[in-house]
Amino acid sequence: MDNKENNESTQPSGDKLSKNALKKQQKAAEKAAKKSERAETRGEQKTAENEEEDVSKGLYGLLAMIQSTESPDRKLVAIKQLDKSIDGQTIWIRGRLHTSRAKGKQCFFVLRQQHYSVQCLTAVSEKVSKLMVKFVASVSKESIIDVEGVVRSVDNPIESCSQRDVELHVNQLFVVSSSEPRLPLQIEDASRPETESDATNDSEGLNIRVNQDTRLDNRVIDLRTPTSQAIFRIEAAVGKLFRDSLEKRGFVEIHTPKIIPAASEGGSNVFEVSYFKGNAYLAQSPQLYKQMAIAADFQRVYTVGAVFRAENSNTHRHLTEFVGLDFEMAFNYHYHEVLDIIGELFVDIFKGLESRCTDEIAAVGRQYPAEPFKFLEPTLRLEFADGVRMLREAGIEMGDEDDLTTANEKVLGKLVREKYKTDFYILDKFPLAVRPFYTMPDPSNAKNSNSYDLFMRGEEIMSGAQRIHEPQFLTERANHHGIDLQTIKSYIDSFRYGCPPHAGGGIGLERVTMLYLGLDNIRKTSLFPRDPQRITP
Amino acid sequence: MDNKENNESTQPSGDKLSKNALKKQQKAAEKAAKKSERAETRGEQKTAENEEEDVSKGLYGLLAMIQSTESPDRKLVAIKQLDKSIDGQTIWIRGRLHTSRAKGKQCFFVLRQQHYSVQCLTAVSEKVSKLMVKFVASVSKESIIDVEGVVRSVDNPIESCSQRDVELHVNQLFVVSSSEPRLPLQIEDASRPETESDATNDSEGLNIRVNQDTRLDNRVIDLRTPTSQAIFRIEAAVGKLFRDSLEKRGFVEIHTPKIIPAASEGGSNVFEVSYFKGNAYLAQSPQLYKQMAIAADFQRVYTVGAVFRAENSNTHRHLTEFVGLDFEMAFNYHYHEVLDIIGELFVDIFKGLESRCTDEIAAVGRQYPAEPFKFLEPTLRLEFADGVRMLREAGIEMGDEDDLTTANEKVLGKLVREKYKTDFYILDKFPLAVRPFYTMPDPSNAKNSNSYDLFMRGEEIMSGAQRIHEPQFLTERANHHGIDLQTIKSYIDSFRYGCPPHAGGGIGLERVTMLYLGLDNIRKTSLFPRDPQRITP
Repeated sequence: MDNKENNESTQPSGDKLSKNALKKQQKAAEKAAKKSERAETRGEQKTAENEEEDVSKGLYGLLAMIQSTESPDRKLVAIKQLDKSIDGQTIWIRGRLHTSRAKGKQCFFVLRQQHYSVQCLTAVSEKVSKLMVKFVASVSKESIIDVEGVVRSVDNPIESCSQRDVELHVNQLFVVSSSEPRLPLQIEDASRPETESDATNDSEGLNIRVNQDTRLDNRVIDLRTPTSQAIFRIEAAVGKLFRDSLEKRGFVEIHTPKIIPAASEGGSNVFEVSYFKGNAYLAQSPQLYKQMAIAADFQRVYTVGAVFRAENSNTHRHLTEFVGLDFEMAFNYHYHEVLDIIGELFVDIFKGLESRCTDEIAAVGRQYPAEPFKFLEPTLRLEFADGVRMLREAGIEMGDEDDLTTANEKVLGKLVREKYKTDFYILDKFPLAVRPFYTMPDPSNAKNSNSYDLFMRGEEIMSGAQRIHEPQFLTERANHHGIDLQTIKSYIDSFRYGCPPHAGGGIGLERVTMLYLGLDNIRKTSLFPRDPQRITP
Repeated sequence: MDNKENNESTQPSGDKLSKNALKKQQKAAEKAAKKSERAETRGEQKTAENEEEDVSKGLYGLLAMIQSTESPDRKLVAIKQLDKSIDGQTIWIRGRLHTSRAKGKQCFFVLRQQHYSVQCLTAVSEKVSKLMVKFVASVSKESIIDVEGVVRSVDNPIESCSQRDVELHVNQLFVVSSSEPRLPLQIEDASRPETESDATNDSEGLNIRVNQDTRLDNRVIDLRTPTSQAIFRIEAAVGKLFRDSLEKRGFVEIHTPKIIPAASEGGSNVFEVSYFKGNAYLAQSPQLYKQMAIAADFQRVYTVGAVFRAENSNTHRHLTEFVGLDFEMAFNYHYHEVLDIIGELFVDIFKGLESRCTDEIAAVGRQYPAEPFKFLEPTLRLEFADGVRMLREAGIEMGDEDDLTTANEKVLGKLVREKYKTDFYILDKFPLAVRPFYTMPDPSNAKNSNSYDLFMRGEEIMSGAQRIHEPQFLTERANHHGIDLQTIKSYIDSFRYGCPPHAGGGIGLERVTMLYLGLDNIRKTSLFPRDPQRITP
């Protein structure tokens, strides 16, 4: 797992080619591509031509576009399965050409599948012609190729590849899908660990980093890095663990509409949509619909879907469109019944990630090192007043009913981590004054409310509360907040035909994934991020 | 399971109250509600007052709004758990007052939880006062109540309730959340089986149906019917089975953006969004992004999310916003590798529904009878030309390259069902001319394509294809279709850096659920449907 130190020196890397060699490679590939076009129009399988004496004739070349003409009886082996146990076997692999380096009569190259890779070698021999080696060296990086070769054990572990104990001696090689030779970014640059000092840059620019806009503009390539591959598998796991944990507890999945007739909370920060001859809005949250599902007897519901915020916030943690994981639950007598489940839910998620995504978490950590995420079981629960006390003891001044600033959240996160050894906790009993009108007041202290925030590494990931389920009291609270009752009529009406007491909350999938991994920017955990400046690709 | 015949006669139904009795009930409930308000301001638990001689004092009344003041040490039992095995036990239940009928010194009522129900009885006795019985009779239907009572076996099964073998003799009753006494629709009316003849309507209007707009305008109540409760549990199961089946086969869940920079397919039928100082659109499909994920090495992906269609189609099967279950998969040599998995996916879903949702399917069938859904394992696969032949044999004229009309789809569905005994099949090899530009042509017949549709009960539920993964050929095909290349530049560019051959498809969750259950309208399977006429509630 220390390839971050070694991969530049031991890997036969395309980056090390001189500029001349690079040009040659491109020319050869372009020539090959032209041949391929001609071949395709004839629909034939392509092999190198016009060399009478080519001993490798028919064993390499550009395949015609795969159009489902036939299904060859050929088993393709996954790179992750390659190890010494199959030493000596001849196998076929389809993979991406990660790097390649011609060296006299041989060509070393690395074949990649997601975050797995294996070193390959084609060398001139009785079976392999010079022309074939030349062709292999001309294939552009990131092309998808089929290779046939013999698995061979190696004496010295290949540190730059995931499969360190074997290499493949290649006898056949066909290009399935060519990449353009000029890549807008290099996978190695985009994968370079943050720990490598920029100061070690050499004249060949080996320590180049790829800036975020270049990555996002060319997301199809950026997503191929081991880190991106790992991040989105972890993110998928968060979603799965969320659903599994709630389904185990009797929650039913629902789907709430994104197109809504009116701006739900006061009208600011919503995107407007042209809807036939009228207008509509994009939902900022599924909250009203989750609550309606509770009033409709679904008892415990969750929903996963797009949430839209028209906030002009250009920060490391805001997106204009994100994936909301929301839930709502009827309880019997006390909203802590819900808070208990929320605590268990997150323990399920964190434990599940540790056990199912060990390799992926390690992969992300190699590029973006972070302290391992700490949590307690059962989840730590503090009251807002405890938080204020801890902050004051640390010298921070704030009023009892002030909301936490983003900076104070961070400080409190550190204090909690020091004292309780956890990166995750629930802060209960927020001041009523800083919460929305539908929040249930605390019956034992009129200035508090039955509401809570959850924090990961000192950043808020969920705001939730017991909601007011009684229409008359809800009206009263809306009036107190100066809200135009007409805009929330259907919300209030939902509770007129009997509704159990209930509480809930929602998290942003990208934010939870980012904070779990200790990443610095939410755009790393959104497949195609949307922010005020970006809606492409 | 024959309560559709009996429930009107045996059930102690609120519908049978005369208009006078109804008025009385409302008045009593309103009076009670007023008392409750006064009580809440004092924050006390509410019991009937001012009756010195009331032997039930403190054992009934309106509870103060549950504000999480305390957690009584009281176990609430689920109605579905009630049977003879707990005969004689005293238990607490929270449920909805489904119906109630005062009858001399006693009041029969039915308590409901989702699609479970139990008959209850309060009768004047040493412990139960007249006042208490009067109070119970006054509670408005759909209110949520806590009752304490003794479970008693009954001699004659109670056909109108899910729990037929027991009833509850109630000693305590508290209203947790009052419903307004005037309901916009009656649960019994909304639950009435379609099989009951309208001709049997009597003077009390017992066979009233509830029209669709009334249902949708008051969706919170309409969703409480046993049928709605069952439909959305089945729909949740479809989603879960879809995900489980694909995850088992190595698919990774991704999330694709709904806000997109340009109208994906030619620009028609997309909703426009105001995006800060510019404009954006709502995605009609996740297809571009799924394909980009394939080009980014995710190999097999699926996504579940909102899909938007600005079509002014006012039909039984179109929504402007629906839940898309989409997947895309790289294959090795032939798109039938993907088609095999699609066949298995649906078999997994149909088998899973049969085993996990037996009760729910039966519940829907009681209100909306339909032939049980038939399918084959492995899935039946026909070629488009076979379909044309079958239609022609049945006397329908159509050209080889004509697309199937909706009417002909229906006819073909019937022919296939007769011949092959299945409501589900795949039709492969559609004419190239009727498919989008990105569809891979059939290498063996220039007029055909590597594309397929799936049908359930004669209606199309999925269109899919091998996509063209080669940018030059894709450009050629786009030109052939007269598409402005500038509008699809980023789509084509996604394939420039190597992309494996791939195929995929997507289904609409609501449509699959509707057709599986044999329902007549997609609005029945959308929690809060959106169509050109409706974006509320």
